[in-house]
Amino acid sequence: MENIDIAIITGSKSDLNLIQETVNILKKFGLSYSLNIASAHRTTEHLKQCIQCALSSGVKVFIAIAGMSAALPGVIASQTILPVIGVPIDRKSLSGLDSLFSMVQMPEGVPVATVALGKTGAVNAAILAVQIIAIIKDDLREKLKAYKMKIAQEVVKEDLKLQQYGFDKYLEGLTK
Amino acid sequence: MENIDIAIITGSKSDLNLIQETVNILKKFGLSYSLNIASAHRTTEHLKQCIQCALSSGVKVFIAIAGMSAALPGVIASQTILPVIGVPIDRKSLSGLDSLFSMVQMPEGVPVATVALGKTGAVNAAILAVQIIAIIKDDLREKLKAYKMKIAQEVVKEDLKLQQYGFDKYLEGLTK
Amino acid sequence: MENIDIAIITGSKSDLNLIQETVNILKKFGLSYSLNIASAHRTTEHLKQCIQCALSSGVKVFIAIAGMSAALPGVIASQTILPVIGVPIDRKSLSGLDSLFSMVQMPEGVPVATVALGKTGAVNAAILAVQIIAIIKDDLREKLKAYKMKIAQEVVKEDLKLQQYGFDKYLEGLTK
Amino acid sequence: MENIDIAIITGSKSDLNLIQETVNILKKFGLSYSLNIASAHRTTEHLKQCIQCALSSGVKVFIAIAGMSAALPGVIASQTILPVIGVPIDRKSLSGLDSLFSMVQMPEGVPVATVALGKTGAVNAAILAVQIIAIIKDDLREKLKAYKMKIAQEVVKEDLKLQQYGFDKYLEGLTK
Amino acid sequence: MENIDIAIITGSKSDLNLIQETVNILKKFGLSYSLNIASAHRTTEHLKQCIQCALSSGVKVFIAIAGMSAALPGVIASQTILPVIGVPIDRKSLSGLDSLFSMVQMPEGVPVATVALGKTGAVNAAILAVQIIAIIKDDLREKLKAYKMKIAQEVVKEDLKLQQYGFDKYLEGLTK
Amino acid sequence: MENIDIAIITGSKSDLNLIQETVNILKKFGLSYSLNIASAHRTTEHLKQCIQCALSSGVKVFIAIAGMSAALPGVIASQTILPVIGVPIDRKSLSGLDSLFSMVQMPEGVPVATVALGKTGAVNAAILAVQIIAIIKDDLREKLKAYKMKIAQEVVKEDLKLQQYGFDKYLEGLTK
Amino acid sequence: MENIDIAIITGSKSDLNLIQETVNILKKFGLSYSLNIASAHRTTEHLKQCIQCALSSGVKVFIAIAGMSAALPGVIASQTILPVIGVPIDRKSLSGLDSLFSMVQMPEGVPVATVALGKTGAVNAAILAVQIIAIIKDDLREKLKAYKMKIAQEVVKEDLKLQQYGFDKYLEGLTK
Amino acid sequence: MENIDIAIITGSKSDLNLIQETVNILKKFGLSYSLNIASAHRTTEHLKQCIQCALSSGVKVFIAIAGMSAALPGVIASQTILPVIGVPIDRKSLSGLDSLFSMVQMPEGVPVATVALGKTGAVNAAILAVQIIAIIKDDLREKLKAYKMKIAQEVVKEDLKLQQYGFDKYLEGLTK
Repeated sequence: MENIDIAIITGSKSDLNLIQETVNILKKFGLSYSLNIASAHRTTEHLKQCIQCALSSGVKVFIAIAGMSAALPGVIASQTILPVIGVPIDRKSLSGLDSLFSMVQMPEGVPVATVALGKTGAVNAAILAVQIIAIIKDDLREKLKAYKMKIAQEVVKEDLKLQQYGFDKYLEGLTK
Repeated sequence: MENIDIAIITGSKSDLNLIQETVNILKKFGLSYSLNIASAHRTTEHLKQCIQCALSSGVKVFIAIAGMSAALPGVIASQTILPVIGVPIDRKSLSGLDSLFSMVQMPEGVPVATVALGKTGAVNAAILAVQIIAIIKDDLREKLKAYKMKIAQEVVKEDLKLQQYGFDKYLEGLTK
Repeated sequence: MENIDIAIITGSKSDLNLIQETVNILKKFGLSYSLNIASAHRTTEHLKQCIQCALSSGVKVFIAIAGMSAALPGVIASQTILPVIGVPIDRKSLSGLDSLFSMVQMPEGVPVATVALGKTGAVNAAILAVQIIAIIKDDLREKLKAYKMKIAQEVVKEDLKLQQYGFDKYLEGLTK
Repeated sequence: MENIDIAIITGSKSDLNLIQETVNILKKFGLSYSLNIASAHRTTEHLKQCIQCALSSGVKVFIAIAGMSAALPGVIASQTILPVIGVPIDRKSLSGLDSLFSMVQMPEGVPVATVALGKTGAVNAAILAVQIIAIIKDDLREKLKAYKMKIAQEVVKEDLKLQQYGFDKYLEGLTK
Repeated sequence: MENIDIAIITGSKSDLNLIQETVNILKKFGLSYSLNIASAHRTTEHLKQCIQCALSSGVKVFIAIAGMSAALPGVIASQTILPVIGVPIDRKSLSGLDSLFSMVQMPEGVPVATVALGKTGAVNAAILAVQIIAIIKDDLREKLKAYKMKIAQEVVKEDLKLQQYGFDKYLEGLTK
Repeated sequence: MENIDIAIITGSKSDLNLIQETVNILKKFGLSYSLNIASAHRTTEHLKQCIQCALSSGVKVFIAIAGMSAALPGVIASQTILPVIGVPIDRKSLSGLDSLFSMVQMPEGVPVATVALGKTGAVNAAILAVQIIAIIKDDLREKLKAYKMKIAQEVVKEDLKLQQYGFDKYLEGLTK
Repeated sequence: MENIDIAIITGSKSDLNLIQETVNILKKFGLSYSLNIASAHRTTEHLKQCIQCALSSGVKVFIAIAGMSAALPGVIASQTILPVIGVPIDRKSLSGLDSLFSMVQMPEGVPVATVALGKTGAVNAAILAVQIIAIIKDDLREKLKAYKMKIAQEVVKEDLKLQQYGFDKYLEGLTK
Repeated sequence: MENIDIAIITGSKSDLNLIQETVNILKKFGLSYSLNIASAHRTTEHLKQCIQCALSSGVKVFIAIAGMSAALPGVIASQTILPVIGVPIDRKSLSGLDSLFSMVQMPEGVPVATVALGKTGAVNAAILAVQIIAIIKDDLREKLKAYKMKIAQEVVKEDLKLQQYGFDKYLEGLTK
C-alpha cells in the first residue's frame, strides 16, 4: 500500500477545480496525497472507509473542502486525532458565511483548522498542511522558506517593473 | 421495549432548559418521547446507538437541538429516513447565525426541518412534531385545533382586558 | 375530487423553475400534488381558497416557496394544523437573508419547517414532505431508502471513477 | 362609534412598553387612536375584526409593531389601502434583522412604511402618522413645526449648558 | 406655478431607471410630480432649493432614492414636516445593507418611511405616496382598490392558466 | 476669539462619556478643541453655526461621533473642505453596523475618515486628528513618537511582569 | 531624492485599476506621489523599505488599498506616526466586510482612516489626503473649494437638463 | 535555554483568562509552552523578539489570540514557516465578525489556522497544536485518543444519569 502524507476529501465533484489549487501546491512540495469524493451526509460509510484507508496509508493531515452546511471536516475530525484543515466554499447565497461558520465554530475538543473561502483557501490549506508535515521533514522547511521567498520576490519584481516603467506604461502592459 | 413517538437529542446538558419547552408541549399532547444527550462530534458511536434505539422503539420524528457548528440534526438525518427537526441555539457570538446556517443549509437529499432560534424554536419543534404525527393520529388533529384555539383565545383575552381597562390601567396591571 | 398528498404554493410565476425541482422529486416518489400560484399579500382570498381546496382533497403537507418578505408559508401555517414546509429564495439583495429569517423565525405555536435557500431547498422540501408522508405509507419508506442509497452510490461511483482515471484525466473528462 | 385617527396593533403584550412611546406622541398631538393586541399568525380572525373595526371608525393610518417574523404590518397592508407603518423589534437573536427585513422587503403593490428598530421606531411611527394626517389637518402642521422646534431647542439648550459650564462640570452634572 | 403632489429626488442620474418605476405608478394614478437630481452631500444648497421649490408647489409627500450612505431622505426629513419616503439601492458591495440601515435607523423625531431595496422599493414608494395622498382625495381610494384588485387578478389569472394547461405546458409557455 | 485646533461635535449628550476619551487624548497632546452638541437631523441650523464658529476659530480637523443613521460627519463634510473624522457608535440593535456603514460609505468627493466603533474609535479619532495636525506642528511629531513608545512600553512592561511572576501568579495579581 | 506628498501602497497588481482612480485625483490637485506594490504578509521587508523610502522623501500621508484580511494599512500605521488612509476592497466572498472590518477596527493608538469600499473609496482616499495636506498648502484649499464646486455643478447641470428636456427625453438621451 | 513546544502570544492582558483555557489543555498533555503579551500594531519590535526567542527555543506551533482587527496571527505567520493558529475574540461590537474575518481571510501563501471564537477556540487552539505536535510524538497520539475518549465518556455519563433519574429529577439536580 502506497504511503501518503495528506488525504484530501471533497463533498462533490463540482468543487474539483478548487481542489486543483490544493493539489498543485502539494505537488510542488513533493508530498504524496490521496483524493476522494465523499459526502458527510450522503455517504457516511464511504467517508468512513476513505478516512480508514487514509489512516492505513500513514496519512498525517486531512484537508476537507465543502460548501453550505459543510459538515465534512467536522465529521472527519470526529473520527481521527489528526489535524483536519477545512476550506469553506462561497456559493451565491449567504456569500459563504454558511460554510465558514459551520467549519470554524466546532465544539470543544474537536477543532477544524479553517482557512480562507474559495480559491485562496484551497491554496492555503495545502501550505498549512506542508507547514505541519515540515515539523518532521527537514527538507520541507527549506522548501517552505524558498516558496515564501519566491512569492515575496514575485511581488517585489512587480514593484520594480512598476518603478521602472511608471504607472501608466505598467498598467498598459497589464491590460494588454 | 416502550414505544416512543419522538426522539429528542441534545448536544450538551447546558441546553436542557430549552428542551424543557419541547417536553412540556409533547406532554400536553400526550406523546411519548425519549431524551438523550449525545454529541455529533464527540460521541459518534453513542449518537448512533441513540438513533438505533429510537428506531427500534418505533420513533416517528427526531428533534435535535444544538448550537455553534450544530452538526447534530444533519448527522441524524444522514442515518435515518425519518423527518428530523433542528432547533438552532443563539449563543453570544454570531447571534446564532452559525447554528441557523449549519442546520438550514443541508445538501440535496438530506433535509433538516429548521425552526426558530432558541426558546421559540424549542416550542415550535414540538408543535411541528405533533403536526407530523397527527397525520396518523386523528385525536392529535383535534388537540392541535384546540391548542391553536387556546393560544388564539389567550391573545384575544388580553386584547379584551386592554379594551376594558384602557391602556394605562392595563399596563399598570402588567408591571405589577 | 382528486385526492392529493402535497399542496405546493408559490408566490409568483418567476419561481416556477425552482418548483420544477420539487415536482420532479414528488413524481419520482409517486406522490400526487396540487400546484398553485397565490400571494400572501396580494391575493389573500385566493390563497385561502387554495388552502381550503387542498384541505378538501385530503392534503397532508404544504410546501410554500417565496422570496423577500416571504410571508406565504407563515400565512398558510396560520390557517391549518398540517405541517408547512418553507423554501426561502435568494434574490440579489440581502443574499436571501430576508426570506430565510422571515420563514424560520415564526412565533410560538405556528412553526414553518424551513429548508435551504433556492434550488437545494426546493429539492429538500419535496424530500421532507415524502419523509413526513412515509409515516403512513410503508412503500414510501422503502423508496426513501432506495433514493438515499442511489444518491450515495452516485457519489461513490464518481469517487471510483476518480480513483480509476486519476485526478488529471478525471478532471479533463468533467470539463469536456 | 368613536372616531379614531390611528389604529395601533401589536403582536403581543410584551411589546406594550414600546407602544407607550407611540401613544405618548399621539396624545401630545391630540390624535385619537385605538390600540389592539392581535397576532397575524395566531389570531387571523381577530386581527381581521380589529382592522374592520378601525376602518369603521374612520382610521387614517395603521401602526403595527412586531418582532421576529413580523408578519403583522404586511398582513394589515394586504387588507387595506391605507398607509401601514411598521416598527421592527430588536430581540436578542439576530439583533432585529429578522423583523426589519420582514417588514421592509414587502412585495410590489403592498408597501409597509418601515421605521427604526425598537424605542426610536415606536416614537417615529407616531411622528410619521402625525405627518401623514397633517395633510388634512392644518393645526397638526403647526404642532409638528412646534415639536420640531422643541426637540431642536432641547439639543441647543444642552449645548449652551455645555458651553457655559465647560465639559468636566457638565459631565459631572449629567452623571449625578 | 404648477401644483404638484409628490416631489421625487434622486442622488444621481445613474438611478433614473429605478425612478422610472416610481414615475410609472404615479402617472397611472394621475398624480402630478416633480423630479430632481440633487445630492445631500455634494449639493446642499441645490437640494435646499429643490425642497423649497417643491414646498411652494404644494407638495404633499417626498420620495428620495439613494445608495450607499444614503443621507438624502434624512436630510429632506430634517427640512420639512411632510412625510418622506426612502428607497434604498442595493449596490454590489454590502448588498444594500448600507443604504437600508442609513434610511431606516433615523433618530427620534425625524422618521423616514423606508420601503424595499431597489426596483420593488421604487414601485412601493409610489404606492405608499398614493396611499398617503388618498387620505384627502376620495377618487384615489377607488383607484387604489382597483389597482389592488388588478394585481390580485393578475396572480389569479396566472394560477388559472396553470390549472388549465398543467405545469409542464404552462412552464413551456413561460420560457418561450 | 480663541484659536482652536479641533472641533468635536456629538449628536446627543448620551455619547459624552465616549467623547471624554477623545478629550483626554487631545489634552495630553496639548491641543485646543471646541466641543458641541448638535444634531444633523434635528438642529440643521445650530450645526451650521457650530461648523461656522469652528471655522472662524481656525479649526483644522473635525471629529464627529454619532450612532444609528449617523449622518453627522457626512453633513459636516458637505459643508467644509477640512478633514472630518467619524466615530461610529455600537448600540444594541444591529451591533453598530448602521452607524459604521453610514459613515464609511460616503459618496465620491466627500470622504469621512472612519475609525473603530465606540471607545476605541473615540481614542483613535483623537490620535488621527493629532497625526493630521502634526504635519504643521513639529513638536506634535515628537509627542506622537513618545506616545507610541509609551503605549508600546506598557505592553512590554506587562509582558516582563508576566515572564517574571509566571502565568498563574500574574493572573492572580490581575484579578485581585 | 524627489520630494513626495503621498505614498500609495497596494497589496497586489490586481488592484491597480482602483489605484488609477486615486492617482487621477492626486494629479488633478498637483500633488506628487509614490506608488508601490508591497504585501503586509508576503513582503514584510520590502514593505518596510517602501515606508522608509517614502518617509525619506518627506511623505505626509499614506494611502493603502487592500482586500480580504487587509493588514496593509494597519502594518503601515504601526511603523509611522503619519496619517494612514485605508481603502477596503469588495471581493466576491463576504461582500468586502472582511477588509472593511480589518481596516476600521484598529486597536487604540494606531488608527487607520477608513473610507468607502472599492472605486468610491479609491477616489475618496485621494480627496482625504488632499484635505489633510491642504492644512499646510493654502493653494490646495482653493483647489478643494473649486473641486467641490465643480462636482456640485455637475449634479446641478444634470438636474437642469432633466428639467429642460423632461424625464422621458432625458432618460432617452442617457441610454443612447 | 529551555526547549518549548508551543508559543502562545496574546495582544493584551485582558485576554489572559481566555489563554488560561489554552494553557490548561497544554499542561494536561505535558507540552512545554511560552506565553507572551505582544501587540502586532503597538509593539512590532517586541513581537519580533518574542517570535525569534520562540524559534530559538525550538517551538513547533504558534497560537495567537486577538480581537477586533486581529492582525497578530497574520503578522506571526508572515515571519515564520511554522503553523500559526488564530483564536478570534468576540467583543460586543460586531459579535466577533471582525476578528474572525481578519484571521481566516489571509492571502495566498500565508495561512492562519483559524478556530472558534472565544473560550471554545482557546481550548481548540490547544488541541489543534497538540494534534500537530503528535505527528512527531507517539505518546501524544495515545494521550489524544484518551482525551477524546474522556470527553466522549463525559457526555455518555451525563446521558446515563439522565436516563436513570428521568428528565425532571436530572434537571433539578443540574440547577441545584
